[in-house]
Amino acid sequence: MAGTASPNLPNLPKVLLLKPPPIYLRYESQFSLHFNFLKAYDSPLSLPEYIAATNSTDVAATFVTSLGPRINAADILDHLPSLRCIVTSTIGVDFIDLDECRRRQITVANAADVFASDCAESAVGLLIDVLRKISAADRFVRSGNWSASGGFPLGNRLGHKKIGIVGLGNIGSKIAKGLASFNCSISYTSRKKKPSVPYSFYPDIHTLASDSDVLVICCPLTDETRHMINKEVLLALGKEGVIINIARGSVVDEKELVRFLLEGQIAGAGLDVFENEPSVPKELLALDNVVLSPHLAACTEEAFHDLYQHVKGNLQAFFSNKPLHSPIV
Amino acid sequence: MAGTASPNLPNLPKVLLLKPPPIYLRYESQFSLHFNFLKAYDSPLSLPEYIAATNSTDVAATFVTSLGPRINAADILDHLPSLRCIVTSTIGVDFIDLDECRRRQITVANAADVFASDCAESAVGLLIDVLRKISAADRFVRSGNWSASGGFPLGNRLGHKKIGIVGLGNIGSKIAKGLASFNCSISYTSRKKKPSVPYSFYPDIHTLASDSDVLVICCPLTDETRHMINKEVLLALGKEGVIINIARGSVVDEKELVRFLLEGQIAGAGLDVFENEPSVPKELLALDNVVLSPHLAACTEEAFHDLYQHVKGNLQAFFSNKPLHSPIV
Repeated sequence: MAGTASPNLPNLPKVLLLKPPPIYLRYESQFSLHFNFLKAYDSPLSLPEYIAATNSTDVAATFVTSLGPRINAADILDHLPSLRCIVTSTIGVDFIDLDECRRRQITVANAADVFASDCAESAVGLLIDVLRKISAADRFVRSGNWSASGGFPLGNRLGHKKIGIVGLGNIGSKIAKGLASFNCSISYTSRKKKPSVPYSFYPDIHTLASDSDVLVICCPLTDETRHMINKEVLLALGKEGVIINIARGSVVDEKELVRFLLEGQIAGAGLDVFENEPSVPKELLALDNVVLSPHLAACTEEAFHDLYQHVKGNLQAFFSNKPLHSPIV
Repeated sequence: MAGTASPNLPNLPKVLLLKPPPIYLRYESQFSLHFNFLKAYDSPLSLPEYIAATNSTDVAATFVTSLGPRINAADILDHLPSLRCIVTSTIGVDFIDLDECRRRQITVANAADVFASDCAESAVGLLIDVLRKISAADRFVRSGNWSASGGFPLGNRLGHKKIGIVGLGNIGSKIAKGLASFNCSISYTSRKKKPSVPYSFYPDIHTLASDSDVLVICCPLTDETRHMINKEVLLALGKEGVIINIARGSVVDEKELVRFLLEGQIAGAGLDVFENEPSVPKELLALDNVVLSPHLAACTEEAFHDLYQHVKGNLQAFFSNKPLHSPIV
């Protein structure tokens, strides 16, 4: 019967699913060897009705995703008196009321750095693509223009470019390492100067943009970073400048970015994220100096497999009374 | 008058041009501030007639390209009794009879490593593009399919891939350094084991292919390397394997490569070079697992500027009786 725990797996620990994370759907058969999932999303009942109907007031763990409901007291936590563990498939946990979880002694664990190397190599790939015009050249060859018209415009060298990393966390540090191997000079801005890194710190995004050929945006989206890359920053970056964004679309003022690209006020952009996904500003679709990616910087077969192992590991640790691998609270 | 030395620059040293190198055409005004070019290619006369008509038996230097005539005794050198210096805009000098130059005490200088970092970053960019499907994803977004159909297939992580470098010269070493920064494990094959590098040496391309996820081809085209990447090597690389070629098209048996790609017997390819450029096998144009590039791995604004400086420097060194910067002979 859909919407209830499987009757064949009575001894597996119960895990509530409010909405199935994509990684759950991908690895459902493997996950189901280890846990007895309560698929609340398959039921027409409200959460309290579902919990009552399935005798699940004892459920202690839930596996959640930012695609599902916000995890707050009134809608979710008040109906799950035994909940002690929330595992997410995401890095960001802004959809969970962490204060409330702390008050209730509920441990929250996120995806940690499972995607960090994938995001970093995606940023480097987008940057090389924009500078060296790889996707545009691929279109040129596929259209048959190489034989017909001969030359393709020269690209620009990555080597020795001045790179400004916006947000030097786990991902930004890996981007810096990759680009440094091509003799790029690396600077960064971040909430605080990091004492242990060899890169130049700029407290101010405008000065960083003025002194950089490329801005690579890999910071979290917060109230402070929303539209941080605005008209003034783009002007400071200048006509030869390139923007790479693998963070969130709204870190950039997208309307201004489109205008700067259309008017040749910056040189190019590699964009994995957009303000209103999956909608992409239609003006960008005809530009050869942009590379457009459907929010997949984190998405590889290997990252998804690692995420499956990571989520399973966190849940197994919880049910074995061991410390979670990536606790937030 | 076309075809003769400029009468306004009588004191600049003469440099013969049999065929204008692309870098000469791009930087003609700057080059012409330093040298008095004899544009034999602009004249309908044969070379000996041209030399006689322009009183140029004293010409001591020529600037050549592989796009021009072969530099041999009978056609060229016998008519230039004062020639002591040949400067090329290319890395390869297989179009010059080096033995004959040595016998005549003519110094030959090539483009040295001007393009090495450009070629290396292009190879890394093509590899990330193939693994992470960047160009294919860009097509997907531009076609409007993101909004319409949602998902795009997962790519593969670069990190921790086993990379086999075919030809660990200047370019191959820079590719290895770049990929090592993403925690790839690097092996190589080359004519000889290099004592000073930390990578695993394979004397045999088949074993290297068997032990690699990716082959990056960056060796010279010689009688030994022509069609080195053949059916057996592709079989050894296997279904998950990727080929990157920034060397010469003919290092690969292109017919076999196309067949392996079409049949899914290898996973993908990033190709900057082809056997019959600018013709590209039409079967490749519809494949999403290949990235096609019109032989521009070496071509950036910065590389062309460096090449101009390098060629100018070699010619200036010659006319100042100083050692050339990149002598071959």
